[in-house]
Amino acid sequence: MTASFAFTIEHRDGEARAGTFATPHGPVYTPCFMPVGTQATVKTLTPAQLAETGAQMILANTYHLSLQPGADIVAGAGGLHGFMQWPGPILTDSGGFQVFSLSSLRTIDDDGVTFREPKSGALVRFTPEHAVAVQNALGADVIMAFDECPPYPADREQVEGAVERTLRWFERCVEAHRRSDQALFGIVQGGVWPDLRRRCAEGLVAADLPGYAIGGVSVGEPQTLIERVVRVTAPLLPEHKPRYLMGVGTFREMAQAVAVGVDLFDCVMPTRVARHGSALLLGTGGDRRINLKNAQFRRDYEPLDCVCPCYTCRHFSRAYLAHLVRSEEILAMTLLSIHNVATLTRFAALLRCAIATGSFAQEFAHYLQSGPEPVLSN
Amino acid sequence: MTASFAFTIEHRDGEARAGTFATPHGPVYTPCFMPVGTQATVKTLTPAQLAETGAQMILANTYHLSLQPGADIVAGAGGLHGFMQWPGPILTDSGGFQVFSLSSLRTIDDDGVTFREPKSGALVRFTPEHAVAVQNALGADVIMAFDECPPYPADREQVEGAVERTLRWFERCVEAHRRSDQALFGIVQGGVWPDLRRRCAEGLVAADLPGYAIGGVSVGEPQTLIERVVRVTAPLLPEHKPRYLMGVGTFREMAQAVAVGVDLFDCVMPTRVARHGSALLLGTGGDRRINLKNAQFRRDYEPLDCVCPCYTCRHFSRAYLAHLVRSEEILAMTLLSIHNVATLTRFAALLRCAIATGSFAQEFAHYLQSGPEPVLSN
Repeated sequence: MTASFAFTIEHRDGEARAGTFATPHGPVYTPCFMPVGTQATVKTLTPAQLAETGAQMILANTYHLSLQPGADIVAGAGGLHGFMQWPGPILTDSGGFQVFSLSSLRTIDDDGVTFREPKSGALVRFTPEHAVAVQNALGADVIMAFDECPPYPADREQVEGAVERTLRWFERCVEAHRRSDQALFGIVQGGVWPDLRRRCAEGLVAADLPGYAIGGVSVGEPQTLIERVVRVTAPLLPEHKPRYLMGVGTFREMAQAVAVGVDLFDCVMPTRVARHGSALLLGTGGDRRINLKNAQFRRDYEPLDCVCPCYTCRHFSRAYLAHLVRSEEILAMTLLSIHNVATLTRFAALLRCAIATGSFAQEFAHYLQSGPEPVLSN
Repeated sequence: MTASFAFTIEHRDGEARAGTFATPHGPVYTPCFMPVGTQATVKTLTPAQLAETGAQMILANTYHLSLQPGADIVAGAGGLHGFMQWPGPILTDSGGFQVFSLSSLRTIDDDGVTFREPKSGALVRFTPEHAVAVQNALGADVIMAFDECPPYPADREQVEGAVERTLRWFERCVEAHRRSDQALFGIVQGGVWPDLRRRCAEGLVAADLPGYAIGGVSVGEPQTLIERVVRVTAPLLPEHKPRYLMGVGTFREMAQAVAVGVDLFDCVMPTRVARHGSALLLGTGGDRRINLKNAQFRRDYEPLDCVCPCYTCRHFSRAYLAHLVRSEEILAMTLLSIHNVATLTRFAALLRCAIATGSFAQEFAHYLQSGPEPVLSN
């Protein structure tokens, strides 16, 4: 099967776009927030519950799945879609971020990375060819090039080296990719240096891939710096291809990035904070994160958010959720994950709607006012 | 509201009965297995998932809910049905079993029990009046009398004392009960002594309540002894009232009890073993419990049970479940709980169907063959 992976921009509002990204498992309406299903499960949620949150496309992690259960077992089930029974679009990352952030005792050479897997202690090697082969076997709709993601802070020389290696590895990923029903996206690195971001973007864009990502952000740098890097990098990516900001998913960060033309987002935050008893509340008067352990919710019979259409808000009171959290019941994690994913999904839909009606800048003004900007290194 | 709590027996097959028990939250078709929702949640399952398993009536624990969140908070939500959003019938136990089995440092007097709550260390007192008042506040369809449940083994004198106290407390429970929309059931104690079971049953039956339970079984005694106690006790209970065997829920124990005229069951086993990675498989050639951690399931792309209609079996392979269990993903617990509850529910429905068609003894013959019987004490 050859898929088009066409990206159609239906509405523009300033630099913000509302589009449709065609994948073999259906369209993705952008801006879109993708919940993260690291180990082929968005933690605590069944695919049926996930679909009910309004999630369109989800992310799974190549690093984790290559170690457990192994790509061959997933492939034997007909790929990730069959294995985890998610009928919609899926994106797999390349493992680059995990290899560089989770692994101890790694050695990087020009061919790839060797590292000791923390759980088993086994030596594992990732190369661009391996990362692509694993992703070809997992069978997601979108797969990512294997990149070197430098930490923050990192000195310029280190980031420069990472950009050059990312570009060399990118060529090998393009060469190794075997399936025309999967779109390969390139990842722009370059840390906080605009010229390195430009150098990396120009190297990738030449390949004319169906989409591009901004990587190496949200790795510990301050929020204003994230915003500035995104503002500098987004315009370097092709106008008519989807732009994906990796690892970002707060309301403010998403709105800021949409304002400069980003389309896709992923973040573990909504499900992670849910497992610790917190609910995200979307409000025009400023957003809040409430923790249900707080005594004030013990007798609060209102839903988390009276305008939220999710299963949790349609049925359960804060008092019940507070009881479940205090009782350390797993259902607390499930119900809060449903609400938090639904809230991010709804936020992306509200962004899309505002763009379509030309009211993005007004409606999301409170997210778009930046604090004083940090001076970017150069 | 005055409810009828009528129990209509539609079919008989030997001593086994298929009936309908009317409650304010709908009919319960018997034989019926009730999953346990100790803390106002059947662990890991939403009410929507629970309903899809075919569960009709569920159990919640008065002991736990009286301590967290407290009966007043549940009452403020309109009772358990509103609080946990289970629209069907609910039964609460009296707390007797927990007070006698979980609590350390308890002192029993004729008025009630004082004990130190293990979590908070607080001194708590349960009396028959308190147990009924809490259950009146929780608002379940069926509530249980506060009884003294002796351990196994216990000497005859101890069990005799427990029976006499259970009978005295029973009178006070009947006196204290305030809501005509809740059915109060009495609990027969008496350990493994048939004459004590008879003494207790006769004392309770005089009150002409809407239903009766067999308590103090499945507390550590061998399975053949459970079967014998049930066989001796069931006929002592009124023919035209539902009979509830507390804490029992294996296939074999249920079939044996149904054969002597028991109608209702509850057990934590299906959800507990699910949380440890085990699935219950129902088969005419003997039942099995498989653990998904076992290496043989890593590449097994079949469902848990190819004739099971549950959500888990309709969608997921053993290979996926094995992956989730190995990855310690919460979704493993949820999907296995769905399957195990659905399997017990389906088993009860198969019992009912066999009774209706007069084929119970033949169809369930392999469950009904007892091993050599232990001699009951007398």
